[in-house]
Amino acid sequence: METSLTRRTLLKTIGLTAGTSAMYHAMAMLGHAQASTFSGPPVLSPAKPGTRVVILGAGLAGLLAAYELRKAGYEVRILEYQNRAGGRNWTLRGGDSYTELGGHTQQVKFAKGNYFNPGPWRIPYHHRAVLHYCKQLGVPLEAAVQFNHNAYLHSTRAFNGKPQRLREVWSDLQGSVAELLAKAAQESELDLALGDVERDQLLQALKGWGLLDDEYRYRSSLYTAVRRGYATPQGGGVVDPPTAGPLLELKQLLHPAVWQGLNALLVYNAQDTMFQPVGGIDQITAGFMRALPDLDIRYNARVTHISQTEQEVKVTYEDTRGDGTAQVTADWCICTIPLNILGQIEVQASQPMLAAVRAVPYTGFTKVALEFRRRFWEEDDGIYGGNTLTDQDIDLIAYPPHGMMSDGPAVLIGAYATSMAKTLRLTGMSPQERIETALAQGEKIHPQYRKEFLSGVAVSWYRVPWMLGCRARWSNEARKAHYDALSAINGRLVLAGDHISYMPGWMEGALLSSLDAIQRLHQRVQAG
Amino acid sequence: METSLTRRTLLKTIGLTAGTSAMYHAMAMLGHAQASTFSGPPVLSPAKPGTRVVILGAGLAGLLAAYELRKAGYEVRILEYQNRAGGRNWTLRGGDSYTELGGHTQQVKFAKGNYFNPGPWRIPYHHRAVLHYCKQLGVPLEAAVQFNHNAYLHSTRAFNGKPQRLREVWSDLQGSVAELLAKAAQESELDLALGDVERDQLLQALKGWGLLDDEYRYRSSLYTAVRRGYATPQGGGVVDPPTAGPLLELKQLLHPAVWQGLNALLVYNAQDTMFQPVGGIDQITAGFMRALPDLDIRYNARVTHISQTEQEVKVTYEDTRGDGTAQVTADWCICTIPLNILGQIEVQASQPMLAAVRAVPYTGFTKVALEFRRRFWEEDDGIYGGNTLTDQDIDLIAYPPHGMMSDGPAVLIGAYATSMAKTLRLTGMSPQERIETALAQGEKIHPQYRKEFLSGVAVSWYRVPWMLGCRARWSNEARKAHYDALSAINGRLVLAGDHISYMPGWMEGALLSSLDAIQRLHQRVQAG
Repeated sequence: METSLTRRTLLKTIGLTAGTSAMYHAMAMLGHAQASTFSGPPVLSPAKPGTRVVILGAGLAGLLAAYELRKAGYEVRILEYQNRAGGRNWTLRGGDSYTELGGHTQQVKFAKGNYFNPGPWRIPYHHRAVLHYCKQLGVPLEAAVQFNHNAYLHSTRAFNGKPQRLREVWSDLQGSVAELLAKAAQESELDLALGDVERDQLLQALKGWGLLDDEYRYRSSLYTAVRRGYATPQGGGVVDPPTAGPLLELKQLLHPAVWQGLNALLVYNAQDTMFQPVGGIDQITAGFMRALPDLDIRYNARVTHISQTEQEVKVTYEDTRGDGTAQVTADWCICTIPLNILGQIEVQASQPMLAAVRAVPYTGFTKVALEFRRRFWEEDDGIYGGNTLTDQDIDLIAYPPHGMMSDGPAVLIGAYATSMAKTLRLTGMSPQERIETALAQGEKIHPQYRKEFLSGVAVSWYRVPWMLGCRARWSNEARKAHYDALSAINGRLVLAGDHISYMPGWMEGALLSSLDAIQRLHQRVQAG
Repeated sequence: METSLTRRTLLKTIGLTAGTSAMYHAMAMLGHAQASTFSGPPVLSPAKPGTRVVILGAGLAGLLAAYELRKAGYEVRILEYQNRAGGRNWTLRGGDSYTELGGHTQQVKFAKGNYFNPGPWRIPYHHRAVLHYCKQLGVPLEAAVQFNHNAYLHSTRAFNGKPQRLREVWSDLQGSVAELLAKAAQESELDLALGDVERDQLLQALKGWGLLDDEYRYRSSLYTAVRRGYATPQGGGVVDPPTAGPLLELKQLLHPAVWQGLNALLVYNAQDTMFQPVGGIDQITAGFMRALPDLDIRYNARVTHISQTEQEVKVTYEDTRGDGTAQVTADWCICTIPLNILGQIEVQASQPMLAAVRAVPYTGFTKVALEFRRRFWEEDDGIYGGNTLTDQDIDLIAYPPHGMMSDGPAVLIGAYATSMAKTLRLTGMSPQERIETALAQGEKIHPQYRKEFLSGVAVSWYRVPWMLGCRARWSNEARKAHYDALSAINGRLVLAGDHISYMPGWMEGALLSSLDAIQRLHQRVQAG
């Protein structure tokens, strides 16, 4: 801990005296670079006494701003549209209810201890700001296996619709590609841009990497079974010796659904080691709230106007329970309201900022949680955590990485539709129809679904009243045209949130954006 | 739970009435096949009253035999060479000491709560017997991440000895191979044994799987960075946009150390999801001991003779504390003594069995545990659990998958040498020299080693007095010539243990062998 602080202090010193680039270089030397722009919490000099900041939105960006600004001595007030803090950092449990746009209300019936995170649910190992604040706030994390070699890859268009174990798909695709390239390298006159020595090296590498035999063929054998698993398993005592099963057909392996599935599972943001808060993602919000005693937070406050002069900023809001309209005046305003909501609010800001607010559309994923009587995926299929991929609308089945091997009901994610076409089809349905779809598509992979099903919850983010989407979808063009205007301090107003980051939809983006905004704001205040 | 029992009962019924093949088929239908030969604990009819079984060795095979036979009503006694149960199911903690062959004694100085499993340490998801008994015995398990994309691959012979992140190595090798094959498929007249349609499909698959650009090239870009990670990370607020780093050189990627490393990390027995008992592997032994109250177990008993008549079996043993010699007479004997020890004991058995005992050599891995002041691999390198591979003698650095993000000292595995040459070099050293070697080689990957090091423990299994090796090394020839003779009931003696299985060195092998032995023994007894 001492070393860690020393290192950070060193980095701060370098940063202060030599600029960001020198600090980045120093960080790289210390092994920090390439992971995150996060380099420790901000060290803000004491605020001018009585400086008032109003924060709009009590999601993670707003809570972090409140937390750090209060520590520096600012007078902080938060306005929040909902009757709870956290925003998309949100967990549903048995007894909760949720009403979506259109009026459908779902009563969550999960057993005690079971939960569903409709929004963010995972923390990649390189999201160092989230990891830092979880530790600082005493939010326990647990590793959540992502790539489970024994989970399935399912496609309606390959392998006759029969789910295949990921270890077999991955191993056979790698082996087959290695065999094909070895053949090409041996037989063709093709110039591989490699000299003779390298061609030899290539063949040896393909042989080893692909598990090819002495004739550079990828074949079913006890040798390849060491990677892909056995047909007759390795036993003990008087028992049949292990055997290898048939390989998957190359033609099937080359199907787009196959490599699309493998790709989706292995992107940087989905790689192991992944974390989740123990007990639900909203434990992060709970951690912030514990650290913010006597926080001046007004719930059920729908912001309608943000106006400003050179001296101050004024925010008008309605009480959503019909308790009238009120105003808050402050020296500065940090607005974390999502852009597609902010676009509907009257804001006094520069034309470029207002144009930027309206320039970024939102995606709207659909997630369905299903509770089952027992963990049949573990007991019958040997799948402990991780994800099964499918080309159906549900996209994915995510098995709970916690409570493994326990008895009693358990909740899995039965759909996580992220592509526009898929999520729109699900969004158009009633929650009950979404759940039925998750069951109908999921049972093609797990026939146990119907027998073991207890209840479900379905959240389509386009229908979440306080979001109307789940994350900003920045195009390269929009980024180029609008990002600077959106992130710049505009008079007495600065925007923050995951939408003002290069990782929209991720909690890390919200925290990094918030840290950046408060640091720039503090400098401005101190300079003023 | 009810469903699970019903399924098992069904399988048992099918097995009893229609034979193993029908049961196997039924299991496959239920999704059980291909995972394990384990199909639930044995259901033994009540034993003939007064039937005595002496079990030699209180490792997992012996303990499981005692546990199941006692349930069936047998009178069970165990003789154990050491002064504790568990055998290789062994955990060292602060305060423990260990004296190896040659006389070196190591005092373990680890902080409270830290531990080291010198023998087995991991439970693959397909080792269903171990998983079953852990649950039945109330031994809590936790997932233990194996393939950590952010861990390193290090080779003294590639990348100038600089450790590379596994995600980059793996992604770049896959991308480069895809590019080469795409080039071959496009340019050559080579018959890839694919029609025209398939060639097109191949190109599309290579493009997607390898993350190739529109000209089928694997290049550094924000597109490939989505898998391999960023040079300038994705940030929030006013910050430089993310950038991609340079790719690894193909020539380096093709180095044997590279694919050997990737292969070693991804074999079936090392794939995720992996488990470990919370608090140390010996919690499995503790679970058995809790379930065996009043067990008749004689510790410090060195078996010297096993003789038998048609009526009974007699085992002679010496008290290793000098307390003289004694004999145990029983109706049956289950001997779990490792073959290289058993070969030194006078045993009355058939010539084929005695020949088999002497025909199987043992390997002797070396494992070194290092305790450090802090988790610098997490704090500085962003590596949470998983394994770093190197071609140095230490072979591997395994980061603790438990206690992640905690403060204070932590123990990692600093060497796990399994090849004969590497382990022999380490075995020839004193424990202190092995630890020094682990530090010297490990600091090439983690320069923090020396500064943070507290203490270490090194176990070379050839020097473990009660094992003289760590696991049977079956050749195909030895298996063919001797396995049947070794596993057959020989008069009133039957052998059991991981050495009589197709997975020597694995706890699953010990349990499966033991289950098989007691079931055959029980049938023999009932038939007699």
